[in-house]
Amino acid sequence: MLIYNLLCIGIDMINIGICGLGTVGQSSLEHIVKFKDEIRSNVSANFRISHVADLDIESKNLNGLDVITTNNAMDLAKNPDISIIIELIGGTTVAYEVVSESIKNKKHVITANKALIAEHGDKIFKLAKEANIFFGFEASVAGAIPIIKALTHNMLNEKIFSIFGIINGTCNYILDQMATKNLDFKTALAEAQSLGYAEADPSFDIGGNDAAHKISILASLIYKIPLPYKKTYIEGIESISSMDIKYSDELGYTIKHIGVTKENNDLVECRVHPMLVPKDNILSQVHNVMNAVLVSGERFGSSMFYGHGAGGDATASAVIANLVEAINFDQNIDRTNLKISESIGTKNKKIKEIDDIENSFYIKIHAKDVTGVMAEITNILAKENINIEAVTQHEPNESGSLIPIVMITDSVLGSSINKAIKKIKCLDNVKGEINSIRVLKLHG
Amino acid sequence: MLIYNLLCIGIDMINIGICGLGTVGQSSLEHIVKFKDEIRSNVSANFRISHVADLDIESKNLNGLDVITTNNAMDLAKNPDISIIIELIGGTTVAYEVVSESIKNKKHVITANKALIAEHGDKIFKLAKEANIFFGFEASVAGAIPIIKALTHNMLNEKIFSIFGIINGTCNYILDQMATKNLDFKTALAEAQSLGYAEADPSFDIGGNDAAHKISILASLIYKIPLPYKKTYIEGIESISSMDIKYSDELGYTIKHIGVTKENNDLVECRVHPMLVPKDNILSQVHNVMNAVLVSGERFGSSMFYGHGAGGDATASAVIANLVEAINFDQNIDRTNLKISESIGTKNKKIKEIDDIENSFYIKIHAKDVTGVMAEITNILAKENINIEAVTQHEPNESGSLIPIVMITDSVLGSSINKAIKKIKCLDNVKGEINSIRVLKLHG
Repeated sequence: MLIYNLLCIGIDMINIGICGLGTVGQSSLEHIVKFKDEIRSNVSANFRISHVADLDIESKNLNGLDVITTNNAMDLAKNPDISIIIELIGGTTVAYEVVSESIKNKKHVITANKALIAEHGDKIFKLAKEANIFFGFEASVAGAIPIIKALTHNMLNEKIFSIFGIINGTCNYILDQMATKNLDFKTALAEAQSLGYAEADPSFDIGGNDAAHKISILASLIYKIPLPYKKTYIEGIESISSMDIKYSDELGYTIKHIGVTKENNDLVECRVHPMLVPKDNILSQVHNVMNAVLVSGERFGSSMFYGHGAGGDATASAVIANLVEAINFDQNIDRTNLKISESIGTKNKKIKEIDDIENSFYIKIHAKDVTGVMAEITNILAKENINIEAVTQHEPNESGSLIPIVMITDSVLGSSINKAIKKIKCLDNVKGEINSIRVLKLHG
Repeated sequence: MLIYNLLCIGIDMINIGICGLGTVGQSSLEHIVKFKDEIRSNVSANFRISHVADLDIESKNLNGLDVITTNNAMDLAKNPDISIIIELIGGTTVAYEVVSESIKNKKHVITANKALIAEHGDKIFKLAKEANIFFGFEASVAGAIPIIKALTHNMLNEKIFSIFGIINGTCNYILDQMATKNLDFKTALAEAQSLGYAEADPSFDIGGNDAAHKISILASLIYKIPLPYKKTYIEGIESISSMDIKYSDELGYTIKHIGVTKENNDLVECRVHPMLVPKDNILSQVHNVMNAVLVSGERFGSSMFYGHGAGGDATASAVIANLVEAINFDQNIDRTNLKISESIGTKNKKIKEIDDIENSFYIKIHAKDVTGVMAEITNILAKENINIEAVTQHEPNESGSLIPIVMITDSVLGSSINKAIKKIKCLDNVKGEINSIRVLKLHG
């Protein structure tokens, strides 16, 4: 160990420790080896992966790399030889300990861990600011899409109106397959699982939690508020049926799972849910597992960033972009990252309740085929001041069964829609669940 | 003047001079005034617009701003009080003098001038490197889209396969209107002119020169070659007919004007021309005047950046992003910009001739409705080893007139297609011009 250190740790040699050698960790290692020259041309110091930690390090392929290995990531967090820690352990327990210990020891930290930031970001950014270190998380939102860089370095010089993002590849794949192949939810989910696009337990993705982690990171970044994850409204895609997709299509919309953050008068919206996206909005054209983030600002207008949101190589490319920044930070060539740690959490803005947020809504009601039922429904909507923009009545799915009625409303409060739906449900001629989905009205 | 300087030029006050108060200049001025707090939060020094130059400065509205004005931009380039020059004069004569004089005087320079960089970039980057100053040109390619930042700071850590860009809003608007409203080229151009999307003399945009400027900047950036503008193949959209658009649509393609740069085995392609883009490629969904740049890399896969490519406010937002960088550069907070000036032109790679580049082609031939003509055409193609992927025969436009035959070929050399077209033209049963358009085969 001593001889190793004497031989290798020279002047201007920056030692990097990778914690966690899963798909992204392995790919990051490969990337650094394969493209060392390209990376080297973007920095002004020598660097190398000096240490690697993984619970199951014995089984990992290190491509004959001369690195020190350990099962315990905390060894790396405490090792004074290491300047940069790449945390790819995942989860919020060990990862949090490793990251906070690393920062306390004045190491620069790079992570792809959205859960960690969404849940512990306030503490981490505070630590990073105090320790004066680099904290990079480009890979935590939308994988290879350089959305963190674009926002922090190009777009935050004006008022940002909103972000609408397709930021969960699993949801997008399932909805896209349902739409293009006319599959039902369960079949599309099974297909996603067989292709590795969905986990065995898919609830975290399809339930919206993963997207909520990501949108809360973007919200805190652009509005400089504490991480709003706990106040984020979360709705998944489990209740979207192939009928909803078909009816939406007929009305000119594609259903996507969208993360939304907006600000107006110091009130911030932060939410994830399915949305009907107009087909002339470019977000509707994001297919398969691809991600896309549409940002609207007062001066630049609308910009969209599109790319691979997951996968080892794509995520690793974002980790490597951060690595270049971390090395340049360490060498006092680029200290801009500090602005991020310094600004997040400095503004205290109220997060709006979902009931207080206005949206246009798609509503699907199943009613008996009797005269007067439409009048009953529209009377209830009128009483809640809900205007109807479009209404279509469909053939029953099976002969003699209920008639699906589909409506698109004007922009109304979430609370009004809920009240109206409650009342409509009580009608004798209305049966079963009433499905409501928000409609995106912004033209991107 | 003396009192002014004593009062205003204190410690850490960075003086900025704007040269050229056209649409972008005026908008940059407004942006800095309106969003001073937002910009200030991203830098660590005070700044102000101290000087403004415009040939017609007397007629300009300065919003009551306390600035020193002049008709002569060279006054600003020589003024030792100014640290940052924003060049928005346009053209390549005065602008070049102002920029090179400014750099020689150790001023940081920001420009939106693509012609200037495409034509004089090699000299300018050399000067910038020697003077150790910031040279920013984010606004020169695709307006508000932060493509320069994304490439230089996030994507150049691996092998970049290609860029395909819709980088001229005028061309995109005209082709999009032709496709969606079934207009002919002249009508669509007239509409673009009436809306201010095309100049009175539109040749620079519709002829492809503007796009060629931009793609050559991107090529030199990603492949580190000298500016390849003079070797860039340039083809405009003047010969695209509404029939081409209709036939392409039937085959599943949308026609777009695309800037392309690619590299393989140290051979670089740099070209702009119309292309048939498959409808399942997201580039085909870029409508109106919007721009989009699709970048493909070995690790991140395909990423697309979409936004406003022109217009005062959008372009100014990119100028302001550079301004923040320039201030941080000046304050030694972010010196990464030097890597750009240092790297451009360091690699000498051959630019491929258009004849030596392979593409799939769309070919439209007008032939007499006689037996044997199709065999004559396909025989010629076979002799040049050109395989046909799809062929459609259309109804004549007018009764008794020629029959349009449309083919999509496999990937072949430009020289082979030219040879074949020359021979086909000589056939007795073939009349008039033969239109050939390249086909994009990459799935983005």
